[in-house]
Amino acid sequence: MKNRLHTIPLKAVTVRDHFWTERIALLAREVIPYQWDALNDNIAGAEPSHAVENLRIAAGKSDGRFQGMVFQDSDVAKWIEAASYSLIAHPNPGLEAVIDELVELIAAAQQSDGYLNTYYTVAEPDQRWKNFSFGHELYSAGHLAEAAVAYYQATGKRKLLDRVCRAIDYIDSVIGPEASKLKAYCGHPEIELALVKLYRATGEQRYLRLCQYFVDERGQQPCFLEAEPAFGNGTPDPWFAADYHQAHAPVREQQAADGHAVRAMYLYAGMADLALETGDPGLIAALRRLWENVTGRRMYITGAIGSQAHGERFTFDYDLPNDTAYAETCAAIGLIFWAGRMLLLEPDRRYADVLERALYNGVLSGISLDGRKYFYVNPLEVQPEAAARRYDLRHVRPERQQWFGCACCPPNIARLVTSLGQYLYSLDDQTLYVHLYVGSQIRVALNGTPVGLELRTRYPWEEQAVLEVEPEQPAEFAIALRIPGWCRHFEIRLNGQPLENPPLEKGYLKLSRRWTRGDRIELRLAMPVELIRAHPRVREDAGKVAIQRGPIVYCLEEVDNGGRLWDVALPEGAQLSCEFSEELGGMVAITGQALRSDTEHWGEALYRPAGGGSQAAPIRAVPYCLWGNRRPGEMTVWIAQK
Amino acid sequence: MKNRLHTIPLKAVTVRDHFWTERIALLAREVIPYQWDALNDNIAGAEPSHAVENLRIAAGKSDGRFQGMVFQDSDVAKWIEAASYSLIAHPNPGLEAVIDELVELIAAAQQSDGYLNTYYTVAEPDQRWKNFSFGHELYSAGHLAEAAVAYYQATGKRKLLDRVCRAIDYIDSVIGPEASKLKAYCGHPEIELALVKLYRATGEQRYLRLCQYFVDERGQQPCFLEAEPAFGNGTPDPWFAADYHQAHAPVREQQAADGHAVRAMYLYAGMADLALETGDPGLIAALRRLWENVTGRRMYITGAIGSQAHGERFTFDYDLPNDTAYAETCAAIGLIFWAGRMLLLEPDRRYADVLERALYNGVLSGISLDGRKYFYVNPLEVQPEAAARRYDLRHVRPERQQWFGCACCPPNIARLVTSLGQYLYSLDDQTLYVHLYVGSQIRVALNGTPVGLELRTRYPWEEQAVLEVEPEQPAEFAIALRIPGWCRHFEIRLNGQPLENPPLEKGYLKLSRRWTRGDRIELRLAMPVELIRAHPRVREDAGKVAIQRGPIVYCLEEVDNGGRLWDVALPEGAQLSCEFSEELGGMVAITGQALRSDTEHWGEALYRPAGGGSQAAPIRAVPYCLWGNRRPGEMTVWIAQK
Repeated sequence: MKNRLHTIPLKAVTVRDHFWTERIALLAREVIPYQWDALNDNIAGAEPSHAVENLRIAAGKSDGRFQGMVFQDSDVAKWIEAASYSLIAHPNPGLEAVIDELVELIAAAQQSDGYLNTYYTVAEPDQRWKNFSFGHELYSAGHLAEAAVAYYQATGKRKLLDRVCRAIDYIDSVIGPEASKLKAYCGHPEIELALVKLYRATGEQRYLRLCQYFVDERGQQPCFLEAEPAFGNGTPDPWFAADYHQAHAPVREQQAADGHAVRAMYLYAGMADLALETGDPGLIAALRRLWENVTGRRMYITGAIGSQAHGERFTFDYDLPNDTAYAETCAAIGLIFWAGRMLLLEPDRRYADVLERALYNGVLSGISLDGRKYFYVNPLEVQPEAAARRYDLRHVRPERQQWFGCACCPPNIARLVTSLGQYLYSLDDQTLYVHLYVGSQIRVALNGTPVGLELRTRYPWEEQAVLEVEPEQPAEFAIALRIPGWCRHFEIRLNGQPLENPPLEKGYLKLSRRWTRGDRIELRLAMPVELIRAHPRVREDAGKVAIQRGPIVYCLEEVDNGGRLWDVALPEGAQLSCEFSEELGGMVAITGQALRSDTEHWGEALYRPAGGGSQAAPIRAVPYCLWGNRRPGEMTVWIAQK
Repeated sequence: MKNRLHTIPLKAVTVRDHFWTERIALLAREVIPYQWDALNDNIAGAEPSHAVENLRIAAGKSDGRFQGMVFQDSDVAKWIEAASYSLIAHPNPGLEAVIDELVELIAAAQQSDGYLNTYYTVAEPDQRWKNFSFGHELYSAGHLAEAAVAYYQATGKRKLLDRVCRAIDYIDSVIGPEASKLKAYCGHPEIELALVKLYRATGEQRYLRLCQYFVDERGQQPCFLEAEPAFGNGTPDPWFAADYHQAHAPVREQQAADGHAVRAMYLYAGMADLALETGDPGLIAALRRLWENVTGRRMYITGAIGSQAHGERFTFDYDLPNDTAYAETCAAIGLIFWAGRMLLLEPDRRYADVLERALYNGVLSGISLDGRKYFYVNPLEVQPEAAARRYDLRHVRPERQQWFGCACCPPNIARLVTSLGQYLYSLDDQTLYVHLYVGSQIRVALNGTPVGLELRTRYPWEEQAVLEVEPEQPAEFAIALRIPGWCRHFEIRLNGQPLENPPLEKGYLKLSRRWTRGDRIELRLAMPVELIRAHPRVREDAGKVAIQRGPIVYCLEEVDNGGRLWDVALPEGAQLSCEFSEELGGMVAITGQALRSDTEHWGEALYRPAGGGSQAAPIRAVPYCLWGNRRPGEMTVWIAQK
């Protein structure tokens, strides 16, 4: 590895964290088996998946017809990926045997030419490569490649990797810049980042070149997607034209994040991977521009993105409705993928800030505390009665669901959380960057010296973090600690000695010195309860504040506060206090006094002269990511301010 | 006429009002000819109507195929109705000749059995009476009946009336309670109220009985509409099932206003007409219950109703979104139809208050000052940039349009405004009720004595109204003046003498005495600028106020206030002042100081800790009904309150 930033292999990171360890263990213990049941249609009352059955049919081991989404294979692939990561921390021969058997099934479903896709094998064998807009063939292949790399890294087993390489080799023989090949790319990006993973795992340059081709080809005009039958027959819906697929302009020329939010995130992550390998300045400039646009103008305070259900897409700057939000769990996960890669391009806390925001808020909200129920859509305001408005709110489920016909999100959360270790740190030869404060132990090499490091904290509930540094022998290197953007006051001690006004470099406090065994860093990141406002151009948040403490965004739930949450107003200077509670798996709850309308004396009038008055009402806010784990009811993140 | 409340025939009311006279004259001079051009597809750049051409085709005078909505005939009928009313105040032999010629065309389009409907004559001759849900056959027949009665009353000409009676007689022979007839009613109510008009004009009891049948049959279960092919083929959309047509329960058992708002209004108006003729207590109880529901829980402050575009319908109590509002002009007009009839059932100012609210706000907003552009949808908040959100806002046009493919609204406004005279007063043998303060002269009989009355006022801009009473000879009768619900302080003088604390009876100040020539009433209705709040259960108006003065609801427009209107906040105790302006045809504008965010110092952050501060900003509010007559831009009725 040349001296550039890279992550720590998952095997070299042990998460030992009061917040995360049980969540990861729950995934290994409960969620991955549960999701396997879901993929095998064994969850009573849940929407069936048919994903494994599709593989059986394609493998000739079962009769029947293909069912589910055209990209149903990708749910299996994401599950393999999650299960593989979980095997690293939680070895499980039984689970490994299940995957081995599944790999055999996948191998049997592969066609003699290498093609590997159950939909086009079973349902439409003569329609390969004819619907790049919505066919998801390359997308599904990309997920299989990610699965194969993960399983190989977790177990050393090559069978799936070899089969995937055959599948990708076949794709490489069909699509590409050469005159004899199809000029195309996938409507849904994904294979780009997967090809870089596969390149890194195998060293095969052709995979990197194919990624480069897909990235360079996307958005060349005229856009071939618009000429596909998916648009050609009948009335084309302009919402699903080029920009939906980020194909409205060559990627290096794109100015704003347009179109389908998950597509956008997977594309940008793939572009960042390519830039990491090539250093392409045009690509890096585009990524920075798109980053500014997404995180500066089109992102919810929870890190959720994609504000409109129709097209599951970005709309326009500062358009962030809270109740009709789409805010797909997968899009926030994709934002984390992208942010993690941007952190490797340049260590700048703004990337880690967003990564953390999405992780602790807009992603974790997608899964229930017991791991068995999921939000696909993560609005910031829910009024269950408004489900009656099935026109603009039909996509909103006021309660998490057991599974989905289109079940991209549940296994996506699983693979993200089980691979959390890779987002905590990055390093080059000389410097270890600490991005997230998650209790963990790592072993890395810095300046040629093996170094152990342990981070202990009760983040995000408490302010302290302790890092113990254990180089095998004394060595010169740097430890760069992220001071989060939300933190306005911090204290740091090195071996008990406070460091006064240490300089920050793009948000990182860099300690460069000769480290010896037993060196100890104590960090305190002040976490007062804060009221946050949105930019005045955000119409839907005007006059409102959100409660935030540390990286955690809070919400009001009906179960704590009664209904009609829109009528709760925080007076100027409201005193809010926080206390750890064992409820909801352990969390800090925030309480205080707010004002509510005096409805008792309002009467029946629908409209009447202002006045009327308000009365004090206690409020209790809980972390947004934990909402919907008790009784169904209203929820709101943004609260009126008097 | 027995001693019950009735309206004054239009011929006995002369409107002489600084606010209305020019509007009515504009309709006669410009709008009715413009709409005739529209119906004849002679407006460049407007959506074509094809309505007159359809009649020509049905009459065998032109070739071609039917185009437009299945109920396109009703646009012609509403235009005839409007043109007829306008002939009363503005005799116009040229216009009358145009109508005469049109009547000939209609007569020629009538089939030998009396059937009269261009769609089912030209396009689907074998499909008569097979799609009551959406076919609109009875609806269109009802509009023709209203047109025929209006033209007959304006001109004494019977030809259209006779043709319509033949058409209705034919319907009566096909549909009804007898075993040999179809059991049905129209998906879109309208014929019910039209049949009562026709009954009153002709004295033919069968028309009243047919109305009674339609009212009684509606909502009988199982609902025959749900068995129609419109629902039977493919996937029925539950949104268009029985309740969309107010057919989910017998009308006397309906608890809340459900379904399509215009359908509901026309039905309730027809029910009220029937109740006026029959005194049916079950019908009256249902009407009162539905009135409370609509006006107490489901009506915008502008008098607009039908909050959801999908289904153009009511949703649930207090669900009144401002930006996605449907608020169809026709629905507010329908509310006026209903309110006017309720006023005849019982003189209670709550009916007149709503009638006035809808008239001066949610209806007048539907037409531009020049009469040539129309809003179909009347939201209370518009952000033109959000037109990019074509999913939930695609029905919202930020500018009035020249015409519509479905052009129910423009001729509906025309027939309402040209018949305004009938809503100003009602009377029985002993009492004249003054409902609306519109400058006017009437001649009526009270206690057997012919009485002239002149009302002079500069309402709604000024507080004073003067009524001069001129009985032919001294006579005992009562004049009951509405003290509007919005008015919290009034003064009244009779022949110069103040009356102290006169009692009100359901909001009417009743002066019972012996009146003589030259008696003069002076009334002052205090019109301070008021800030109005919505009921705390209205989520979308939480923390906001609307500016109202007298019956006029105000709004902020970007042309006066700059953009980002959601960022304008009125401080507690804001001083607002009002001044008459010649702008916008003459109106009272309201000005004052508000607060806006200090965006200059905000920076680029999307979210940051509250504080930041605000700065004073002048605001100028104009009547909502006049918005959109200058530059396109943002608009809002509800304004944040600090």
